Amino acid sequence: MRDVAIIGVGITKFGELWDKSFRNLISEAGTKAILDAGIEGKDIDALYVGSMSPGRFVGQEHIGALVADCSGLDTLHIPATRIEGACASGGMALRQAYISVASGINDIVVVGGVEKMTDVVGGEATNILAMAADQEWEAFFGVTFPGLYAMIARRHMYEYGTTREQMAEVAVKNHENGLLNPNAHFHRKITVEDVLNSPKVADPLTLLDCSPISDGAAALILAPLDEARKYTDKIVKIIGSGQASDSLALHGREDICTLRATVEASKQAYKQAGIEPKDVDVAEVHDCFTIAEILAIEDLGFVKKGEGGKAVEEGMTRLDGEIPVNPSGGLKAKGHPVGATGIAQAAEIVLQLRGEAGKRQVKDAEIGLTHNIGGSGASCVVHIMEVI
Amino acid sequence: MRDVAIIGVGITKFGELWDKSFRNLISEAGTKAILDAGIEGKDIDALYVGSMSPGRFVGQEHIGALVADCSGLDTLHIPATRIEGACASGGMALRQAYISVASGINDIVVVGGVEKMTDVVGGEATNILAMAADQEWEAFFGVTFPGLYAMIARRHMYEYGTTREQMAEVAVKNHENGLLNPNAHFHRKITVEDVLNSPKVADPLTLLDCSPISDGAAALILAPLDEARKYTDKIVKIIGSGQASDSLALHGREDICTLRATVEASKQAYKQAGIEPKDVDVAEVHDCFTIAEILAIEDLGFVKKGEGGKAVEEGMTRLDGEIPVNPSGGLKAKGHPVGATGIAQAAEIVLQLRGEAGKRQVKDAEIGLTHNIGGSGASCVVHIMEVI
Repeated sequence: MRDVAIIGVGITKFGELWDKSFRNLISEAGTKAILDAGIEGKDIDALYVGSMSPGRFVGQEHIGALVADCSGLDTLHIPATRIEGACASGGMALRQAYISVASGINDIVVVGGVEKMTDVVGGEATNILAMAADQEWEAFFGVTFPGLYAMIARRHMYEYGTTREQMAEVAVKNHENGLLNPNAHFHRKITVEDVLNSPKVADPLTLLDCSPISDGAAALILAPLDEARKYTDKIVKIIGSGQASDSLALHGREDICTLRATVEASKQAYKQAGIEPKDVDVAEVHDCFTIAEILAIEDLGFVKKGEGGKAVEEGMTRLDGEIPVNPSGGLKAKGHPVGATGIAQAAEIVLQLRGEAGKRQVKDAEIGLTHNIGGSGASCVVHIMEVI
Repeated sequence: MRDVAIIGVGITKFGELWDKSFRNLISEAGTKAILDAGIEGKDIDALYVGSMSPGRFVGQEHIGALVADCSGLDTLHIPATRIEGACASGGMALRQAYISVASGINDIVVVGGVEKMTDVVGGEATNILAMAADQEWEAFFGVTFPGLYAMIARRHMYEYGTTREQMAEVAVKNHENGLLNPNAHFHRKITVEDVLNSPKVADPLTLLDCSPISDGAAALILAPLDEARKYTDKIVKIIGSGQASDSLALHGREDICTLRATVEASKQAYKQAGIEPKDVDVAEVHDCFTIAEILAIEDLGFVKKGEGGKAVEEGMTRLDGEIPVNPSGGLKAKGHPVGATGIAQAAEIVLQLRGEAGKRQVKDAEIGLTHNIGGSGASCVVHIMEVI
């Protein structure tokens, strides 16, 4: 397999973007990535795009061809493929794009992620997101995603003494980081008290424990490492890629406080990269709920199982901490247009490794990690990148 | 890139299967393929699945993890990825699975395709299928898939003198072949008069010019060629893989009588295989409407542009013809559970090349081709296989 580099990134503003359509968003992100890489349309060999449920959110399937078309790439007749893995759709699309370049079948590849979530009314977005859970054995009985993660949170509190305050600290930190990210959905400082006193969504989780419903898109340009220098001096190499699955329903797992998919995917990625968790300088992890970030730093091996809450409380994951986590603001503050998330995470890590992350720059970041979850943990994709 | 072989195939009955769920169908096909290959669950490195719109047809996304789970593979924690490309979802899934084995990242891979289309009521299936077209510029204005292909048919008749009778001959031939396929949706001999006299759907197309709405699934097992002999003596090698895109809407194309995506995808596949169209012994092509099979044999280079209708009339594509096309009965008679179709085509070619196609066996078939279209031709995937 060939080495693969990321030579361009593009990202839109995330938020409730009433004036931007699905097509606007993905073509904006793609164009920005193409300009960032300094490539031309005719250089592109293939396109991949991650999106969770455009069929329900905007009434459109056949997303690969749509994105090629609305980005003006239709006359190139390149392969254009959509990947779906619920909220891990973006991460999975990156992995397929990576494999295709590593295999030698493609050279320059554009990979995007997109979701337009605010064109549906009322609670419909919650119903659509519930399709990432087991429709027959979970959603049918009325459980929604806050409910599933609330069960995990409650069990984690019982098993390990994790506190509501520790979970709230995740939201506080990520909102602080989001203030420094011009593309973030939220620019609002919050306190632990704000989180605890915000409306209850699914006990013990409150509104400010939950990531928002956002519109947005992100894109990356991949190239064989050997050719990357033709386009840029700021080369970020993908040194590890892992993906794993688990039972779709929470009740199918031995232990709901551990996401086995995270453990297995990160094992693969660490092994390929030849590094250990302690070697990671910065990480973007899947904090769809505050408890999810605590699980992530445990299951990725940054801390021991059960010690995630304490680590957050002690500031280990802050911008100036031992392993800064979610400098972008994470899903919580940057926003969570589900199909875009995995690609946006990678875009943030690339900016961090290039030293272009502005006010939220992590000092001396050389190795970064992305962690993208689908559903309540039935899918996970982990990528590790290094600046060279 | 490594050489890749198909070492196992599985397919369900296609039809209106009221007693089978989405989960039943894909796990049945996968299990049959695993048994056919003689592998065990623990041998499997990854799973890919093609499905067009399970979010609308059965209210479930996150299909990769679902399929791993309902097939009993969840405890393996393997990567499980869904691919979507409208009616080309199956072909695209096969291509991603192929690339992943060729790259060296995976050894044994299961790739499935599935659609459960009959759980929705009334005209809803037509609305869902319309999401394969351009929702904003085609479907919104009321055109459905029969309407799009009717426009192509009318233009083809005008440009090349193709007749209604020639189109009807496609349906007659495919229904004849379907009679010999125990898994086919329809087992009913029809005549040219039956086609012409059946209810008009979208002028000039009648009901019997259209493929049906079906439930069904199919699966394949892929392995590196070097390891294939460990499992089987009946080795079918993938010698060419091509994929291309085109404008999503029909009006974006220079010429609606040529599907450029077919031309480009087949060029890639022929080049990789080092063969010419005349070397193909048997082909499964995307006859979602009768006119589509005529376009396919032209765009694949079996005959010159404009001569497809005449070739069908003269019997060139019959089971005993020069290039037998759709020995399985094709989408028209075998059925068209959209996400399953690309995988089912490959399963048929594997059976033909192994000499295991029973009463519909094509004599001395050594090289076979599959041709899978998404929408009105915005996506196309072509694979070429050879028995060795």
